[in-house]
Order: sequence, then C-alpha cells, then structure tokens
Amino acid sequence: MALLLTSFFGAPAEWRKLFAAQMPDLDVRIWPEVGNEADIEVAAVTTLPRGKLRSFPNLKMIVSLLAGADVLLSDPDLPDVPIVRAGNPDGDEMMSEAALVHVLRHHRHLPAYWAAQQRCEWISLPRLRARERKVGVMGLGVIGLPVAKALAAHGFAVAGWVRSPRRHDGIETFAGREQLPAFLARSEIVVNLLPLTPETRGILNAGAFAQMPRGGAIVNLGRGAHVVEADLMVALDADHLAGATLDVFPVEPLPKESPLWRHSKITITPHVARRIDASELVPNICGAIRAFQAGRPLEHLIDRKRGY
Amino acid sequence: MALLLTSFFGAPAEWRKLFAAQMPDLDVRIWPEVGNEADIEVAAVTTLPRGKLRSFPNLKMIVSLLAGADVLLSDPDLPDVPIVRAGNPDGDEMMSEAALVHVLRHHRHLPAYWAAQQRCEWISLPRLRARERKVGVMGLGVIGLPVAKALAAHGFAVAGWVRSPRRHDGIETFAGREQLPAFLARSEIVVNLLPLTPETRGILNAGAFAQMPRGGAIVNLGRGAHVVEADLMVALDADHLAGATLDVFPVEPLPKESPLWRHSKITITPHVARRIDASELVPNICGAIRAFQAGRPLEHLIDRKRGY
Repeated sequence: MALLLTSFFGAPAEWRKLFAAQMPDLDVRIWPEVGNEADIEVAAVTTLPRGKLRSFPNLKMIVSLLAGADVLLSDPDLPDVPIVRAGNPDGDEMMSEAALVHVLRHHRHLPAYWAAQQRCEWISLPRLRARERKVGVMGLGVIGLPVAKALAAHGFAVAGWVRSPRRHDGIETFAGREQLPAFLARSEIVVNLLPLTPETRGILNAGAFAQMPRGGAIVNLGRGAHVVEADLMVALDADHLAGATLDVFPVEPLPKESPLWRHSKITITPHVARRIDASELVPNICGAIRAFQAGRPLEHLIDRKRGY
Repeated sequence: MALLLTSFFGAPAEWRKLFAAQMPDLDVRIWPEVGNEADIEVAAVTTLPRGKLRSFPNLKMIVSLLAGADVLLSDPDLPDVPIVRAGNPDGDEMMSEAALVHVLRHHRHLPAYWAAQQRCEWISLPRLRARERKVGVMGLGVIGLPVAKALAAHGFAVAGWVRSPRRHDGIETFAGREQLPAFLARSEIVVNLLPLTPETRGILNAGAFAQMPRGGAIVNLGRGAHVVEADLMVALDADHLAGATLDVFPVEPLPKESPLWRHSKITITPHVARRIDASELVPNICGAIRAFQAGRPLEHLIDRKRGY
C-alpha cells in the first residue's frame, strides 16, 4: 500500500526518515509526486485541491493532520472513507502557551500601555490578580480543553462553552446556544477554540460582543470565519470591547487591504499559535494505519455530521 | 507605642481596618499626619523624604514595604535600627506573572509581529517550544527565585545568576562576576530582578549586551538604574538585541522627553509588575512588631552592607 502525504510542516526528508523508522515497508509519496493514483490507500493531509481525494480509486482512509476538519469537510467530492485526526489527543502545549500569552496581555492591559507609550504617557490601570479575572474558553475539545486547564492552572477564573452539557473539574461549563449569553456575560476575556462548522460560523458577532462585559477582549485562535470582522471593529470603536487578538483569518495571508491590520485595538499574529512537528504526527499516522490494517476500531474519528 | 505608616498602596481606611483587626491597641499614624514625633517607635514605609526617619527620637524598627531596600538605604541619615522586609517571603505571584507574560512575548516574537503589523506584512519567524528557549534570571532572592521557578515550571530552560554560589533544583545557577559572561552568553531572554546596590548599578550595560546571543531580549523588572539606557538603545539599533521590556526607570514617571518612549524595540510599562495589597502586608508588619515587643529574633532582616 502507498501513503500520500501533503504537509506544509517540516522537510520531506524529515518525514521520510521518521516513516522509515516506524514502518520501513510503507511506500510514502509526498504531494505533488503522487505516482500511480491507484496505489494510494491512505492520504495523510493538511489540505489538497478540492475534488483531488476523489481521484484515488482505492483510498481507504484519510488522516487529517490539522486539528480542524473544516477544510477537508468543505470538499463536496470528499470520498466516503473514515477520517481520523493525527494530532495529539492531549492537545498541544504551544496552543496553550499561545492562549496564555494573549490572555495575559489583555489581563495585564499591555495593549493599552502600548497605546499610552505611543503618546509618551504614564498611565495607571487596575492591577487584577489572575483569580480576579474571568476568562471564557469556547470549545473544550482536543485543543480547547487543555487550553482551559492551562489557564485555570495559571489561576484565572475559567469557564468553558461547549455544544452539549458535560462536566470538567475546575472549569465551570456552559452548554448550547441557550447558555451562550450567560457564558459571554461573565467572561472578560474570551478565547475561541471552536471547530468551524455551519453552527459556529460567525458566532463571534455583534450580538455576542454586546453580551460581553464592557472592557472585554477576545482572542481568536480557532478559525477566521468564527469572527464577524466588521462587528468586531464596531465593538472596539464603540469602546465596548477593549481589544482583540486575531491569529486566524478567513483568507491567509491576511490581504494587505484588510482594515484589521491598521486597527489600533487589534493585534494580528500570522497564524503562529502552534508548530506542528512531523515527529509528533508520524507515530499517530502509523498507529492509524496499523489499526486499519489489523481491522481494529479506529480512534480519533472525525464525525462528518458534527463537523469535528 | 505608635506606628507610622507611609504607603501609596490602598486607602488609609483599609489599612486602619486591617490593623484594628490584628492589633486593636496599635496607634496607627498615617503619613503625613505624624502627630508627636516622639511617639513613633516603628515606621512601616515605602519612601519618606530623606532624613525624615532621623526625626523620630524613639524609633526602634523600620519595616520596608518594598522588596528593594535601595531607596531606604540611600538615606544618609538613616537611623541605626533594624530594618525588616514586610513582603511575602515566598515572593509575589503577580511578579512571576509579569515576568512570564514579558518572557512569553519575546519568546513568541510578539514585538516583531507587531512591527510587521504596522507594515501590513504577514511574516514567518521560527516557532520554538518553551524547552528550546533559554531564559536567564538575574537575582534569585525573595522575588527572583519564585520567578525563576515559575518560568521553569512553564517549561523554559532557566538559569539564574546570583552573587554567591548556591544550588536550586531545576535551575542552573551561575555565581559572581566571573560567571556572568557565561550566564549571559547562554541566555536568550534575560529577566532582571536584582536588588539595586553599588555593585549591581549599571550591570546591564554595553559589555553585558555584547555577551548575550544575537537576537536576545531583556526584561527589566528590577530597578531602572540597573540598565544603562544609552547602551541598550545602541544594542537594539545595531540589531544585536531584538527587544527590551522596561517596567522600571531611574526617574518615575518616565519623563516625556525620554527617548525610550519612542524606541520601536522597547516596550514600556509604567511600573505595574505587582500590586501590593495591604491585606498581605499588615499581618507581616504586625508579626514583626510582636516579635520586636517579645524580644524574639527578627525575621527577614535587611543587611545594610549587602544592600538587600
């Protein structure tokens, strides 16, 4: 059998070396050098041109190298084979770190101090301890739950918002659309780590911002399409929200003409929350292939209906 | 006996209430309402005009409300009575948090991304994991040691620099002037938390910056006079250092005409690393008074010769 790999993480030689150590007999084809399309039984992919996966007649399994399945699932010609997630099921310490630094920046008023620095002004703002700061995490999945736990471990008063009710130690949980207003109303800093699905697209909109307390901030580490950018700028310009940090955008790189770049209350980072290492993914990809070959149940399956 | 209190932390009524709960008979005088100077036996102070402490003929003990003794010890007329430190001997979680957010900002290249944002430019910089980042903490005292431990707990490769050799679990320690170059050479991000003494004044100078690796950053949370500002700007302008965060300055508020305000690679925060709470200090002040009254040995004494 042959594996097709498409990845923008790491050098091809590094991937080959790691696969050779784990599964020496595996025939690894690295996109775009596919060879005979009929050989491909497993595709481990970040993204591929739409419809491309359909061209492999013997495809048995797709391995998603990204945590979010939204790009894969947006392919209308996606073959009807199992899709499993290769990422570490315990999340990613770099994502937790990214959330921590941006929550801390807003918690410690660094954007406001930076603005004051531009005016050569020595200002005084309230200094809250972490336990006095209410942080809300949207999405408590593979990525979001470890982030919420890391923020709680730092000392923040953390609540989470999820699709269906569940319990997590130390994290107050709000569930479903009906509890979203209460979640937002108690969250001074909201971190978005939801999967992008038809239900969550545009969830951070004017209505959501209005429900947040005045002076609040948002940190978007999910997908760009979760945020209605025009609504965000209105909420910032009205001084209802104090700041926003955006790491993800509907189109990346963010186009030069986007007004987000020049908004003084928006911090833009160029989709850099995580570094995905081949050394972490290869053992998981090989594990999925072995389970598939042995006919064992596949773990970390993506549910096409839910969208994640 | 009467206690003279001078503090810019918290409202006088809050201090009075806390003292009333702990030591109802204590006669608390809040600066500048001293009353009869001969009544004052203990002075719990942040700062007082130079020579003022000398005017209390029956002064028996000074309690420093600041972690650094430099301002007190710079008074040439300082009475020859014991000086004890009121701060929590386990450090301050807010100081550890301040160090963490600024180290993370430099670790995650946020100043460089901010500069790129001003040019509407989507850039790519190396994404290192915390364990791949070498952080150096100068000063492992009451304040510095908890900071070093917090940074190590986050995952950074932390080393400390101290005056005299000692060992701390998980923190590689360099001691004395002769090991300073090696400490600086291995530290990509240097956090300064030294006490200000004649020996440490100006310690972060051109020589020190030259010993640091190219692309390094400094975070000054100690005292402004530790840094030779002109040397820092030269090191930044030469692209030897990538950035600096300064929370403390020789004169505060930082004067409008200071070139630091306008330096694009310097982040200025207006001395906001910690919030000192009366509720944390009052029990320690009362504890020192009780020990003094009972003739028990005083804890957390400041050594005038060492300067901290």
